[in-house]
Amino acid sequence: MTISRKLALAALIVPTLFPGAAMAAPPVSPASDDTAWEFIAGLTSEVGQRLAGSEAEARGRAWAADKLKALGFRNVAIEPATTRAYVRGTDTARLIAPVPQKLAVTALGFSGTTPDAGVEADVVYFASFDALKAAPASSLAGKIVFLDHAMKAAQDGSGYGPYGQARREGPAVASTKGAAAIVIRSIGTDSHRNPHTGVTNFPAGVAPIPAAAMSNPDADMLVRLIGKGRALRIALTLTGRTAESLPTGNVIGELPGRNPALPPILVGCHLDSWDLGTGALDDGAGCAIVTAAALKAQNGGQTLRTIRVLLAGAEEIGAAGGAAYAKAHPERHALAMESDSGADRIWRVEMKFAPANAALGDRVAAALAPLGIVRGKGEVEGGADVGWVITAQKLAAIDLTQDMTHYFDIHHTPDDTLDKIDRAALTQNVDAWAAVLGVVANAAEDIAPVE
Amino acid sequence: MTISRKLALAALIVPTLFPGAAMAAPPVSPASDDTAWEFIAGLTSEVGQRLAGSEAEARGRAWAADKLKALGFRNVAIEPATTRAYVRGTDTARLIAPVPQKLAVTALGFSGTTPDAGVEADVVYFASFDALKAAPASSLAGKIVFLDHAMKAAQDGSGYGPYGQARREGPAVASTKGAAAIVIRSIGTDSHRNPHTGVTNFPAGVAPIPAAAMSNPDADMLVRLIGKGRALRIALTLTGRTAESLPTGNVIGELPGRNPALPPILVGCHLDSWDLGTGALDDGAGCAIVTAAALKAQNGGQTLRTIRVLLAGAEEIGAAGGAAYAKAHPERHALAMESDSGADRIWRVEMKFAPANAALGDRVAAALAPLGIVRGKGEVEGGADVGWVITAQKLAAIDLTQDMTHYFDIHHTPDDTLDKIDRAALTQNVDAWAAVLGVVANAAEDIAPVE
Repeated sequence: MTISRKLALAALIVPTLFPGAAMAAPPVSPASDDTAWEFIAGLTSEVGQRLAGSEAEARGRAWAADKLKALGFRNVAIEPATTRAYVRGTDTARLIAPVPQKLAVTALGFSGTTPDAGVEADVVYFASFDALKAAPASSLAGKIVFLDHAMKAAQDGSGYGPYGQARREGPAVASTKGAAAIVIRSIGTDSHRNPHTGVTNFPAGVAPIPAAAMSNPDADMLVRLIGKGRALRIALTLTGRTAESLPTGNVIGELPGRNPALPPILVGCHLDSWDLGTGALDDGAGCAIVTAAALKAQNGGQTLRTIRVLLAGAEEIGAAGGAAYAKAHPERHALAMESDSGADRIWRVEMKFAPANAALGDRVAAALAPLGIVRGKGEVEGGADVGWVITAQKLAAIDLTQDMTHYFDIHHTPDDTLDKIDRAALTQNVDAWAAVLGVVANAAEDIAPVE
Repeated sequence: MTISRKLALAALIVPTLFPGAAMAAPPVSPASDDTAWEFIAGLTSEVGQRLAGSEAEARGRAWAADKLKALGFRNVAIEPATTRAYVRGTDTARLIAPVPQKLAVTALGFSGTTPDAGVEADVVYFASFDALKAAPASSLAGKIVFLDHAMKAAQDGSGYGPYGQARREGPAVASTKGAAAIVIRSIGTDSHRNPHTGVTNFPAGVAPIPAAAMSNPDADMLVRLIGKGRALRIALTLTGRTAESLPTGNVIGELPGRNPALPPILVGCHLDSWDLGTGALDDGAGCAIVTAAALKAQNGGQTLRTIRVLLAGAEEIGAAGGAAYAKAHPERHALAMESDSGADRIWRVEMKFAPANAALGDRVAAALAPLGIVRGKGEVEGGADVGWVITAQKLAAIDLTQDMTHYFDIHHTPDDTLDKIDRAALTQNVDAWAAVLGVVANAAEDIAPVE
């Protein structure tokens, strides 16, 4: 609190103390409509997939640091960290009975490992996660569970919480009931032959079992056979393994404000991706948006406060990068935001400010209204990466909600590639973010913690 | 000609000779809107992919014969044949330089075989098939060709001819210039991470080289790197092989006409599919449409002429089934049609009739007009399967042209699954086919060969 008041005082007198600071602004690249697109195009083609803990993720950090420097960011640094990670092996599955068919599957992160020859067992079907939970103890001994739990698309992406439960918790529940393995219907809303990966979690004391997701068309096919009363038998091979500690890291860079003493605005995203696609929407787009918007916010003149970008590592597998950042950066921040929901249009803003900053919230809303972005009355999520520092410092935070109706068509699949990004929508994201940054990074008042 | 005249006479007197034949009609199932859908759903789930020459294709024949019998078809038979075929192995590709990236590829049918460890070589880029053809002799020695030849969608599917040339002939051209292997951009109009397979041809004297197709997003990524002046190096493993003779076969069935002595109407499709998907659109849909329409054409009473369905084998790999049918069935046919372009709406009819049958053509057009189907002025293709008997007997033929704007999004990919079929459009196909069969299978006049 004391610190905040001092900073508030400093902020109020900045225009006087640093009247000529704008003249000394670093020569950042002018942000164009191409900045974000070129960021994603470069990252996905010159690096590609960036699985947490992998050599590819490390190449991604080097690429991103070079990119930030080339764009005029200062204090660019790669900050090493470590993460628990999943190292993919060979993922295959076949329907053995009633008829032989190939199944398009992918291992879930932290899946158990099968023998190289795979496992083969009869299938027990559950229409929902609740049905699986209701199965008697030990009733699944030696079986392969097929957990059907079809996700429906929601504009705000909120289905990922309840539907995603099947992926995050289903394998552990199946394990406790004795299952030999589990195959879930992909947590995804498309009808392509590409399965959706993602992490699953086995709590301490629960033995990891092989756990995979299959594509929606494959799940549909199995459901048709089950509907005809046919008994299923599946063979599954997942040879990946969990590594307890692998290198990861964050890339940070700054566009210094006219008053570098003021707490910075933190804008985050994650640089790692799942390995099936090239991480264009998840989350190359987020990193491109925050980077391009930070630059664009300088177009009207150097901002008062420093804008710091955090391109975090290992988000997909537990957000170790964001946790490491919060630990390494106890210095006071003003506010944090994150972009990690693709590249479709922003339609809503949610804000969490201390009561004393109500006017600042109103200015943000006013800056977004011309873009057709409405002010929500819901909670602020903050993001998996900046969430750590938001919690640690009780930071003010803003969510710019993207249209997520089609996000889970692509999420965590081989299809997460550059061509899925709508350039006009990407530009709208950058414009909205730059509008917000134009307000908050030029806010002279103290931006207080939110108790 | 003599035969035709005798048949014409027979046809004209049928109503007199067989006045009560309709009473003896076989008890066929009444065709419902579900007949075609259930056909495809069953074939894709209870059999799945039906690669030409495979055990799965044989299971497909058994399934289809049982299905035709269950629907009330008579004279159902499986007629064995043999085909040259491609037996898929392991298909993988990786970009080695300038950065490591996985590439989504599939071997083309009749591809050469790599060692199990694959081949690795520098890449030579050609923007088009013509550019590849223009390359100097021996200029590609030891290289892997990347043939970029992006297909554009056309409503009538006509792009498959010129664009498909890159797949059918590109590998042979690359081989003659010394290339170690070739990877083409998929002959497809989607942006999913699913490559499009299909046959390629190496003429006698041209050594088969490993030949693959990569998905459009992968090709886009390579083009971006090339555009930045980066040199590419690729590793490719394709372990499949060509088999000179494997079993295939056709399934035929009949709905006998009131006058079985009249030459039958032949309606065809192919029962085999590529192995990546489950052959829903290509050509489960075609077999479902002709089967359901033949049944529906009986709804107004048993037709005068026999309708014979031909579910042909091994179309994808050279149409050996259709050729075997033409050889095994020299008996006179009246007219042939085929459905093999998916399940989207029919918008046009093309007809090839002898001048003496101009009135019959007008009746067909009149029957289709209420469905919004226009009469074209183009050539009749007839279809790859029934084409053999059309040529051998100079048969009259009708093409019902489907909207193919989106057909090559799915064609020959893992994505060819039941969910891609629009049920309303499928029903429109059955209605249009039944309307045509209602005219031609009840035509009392001779349907003459087309000289």
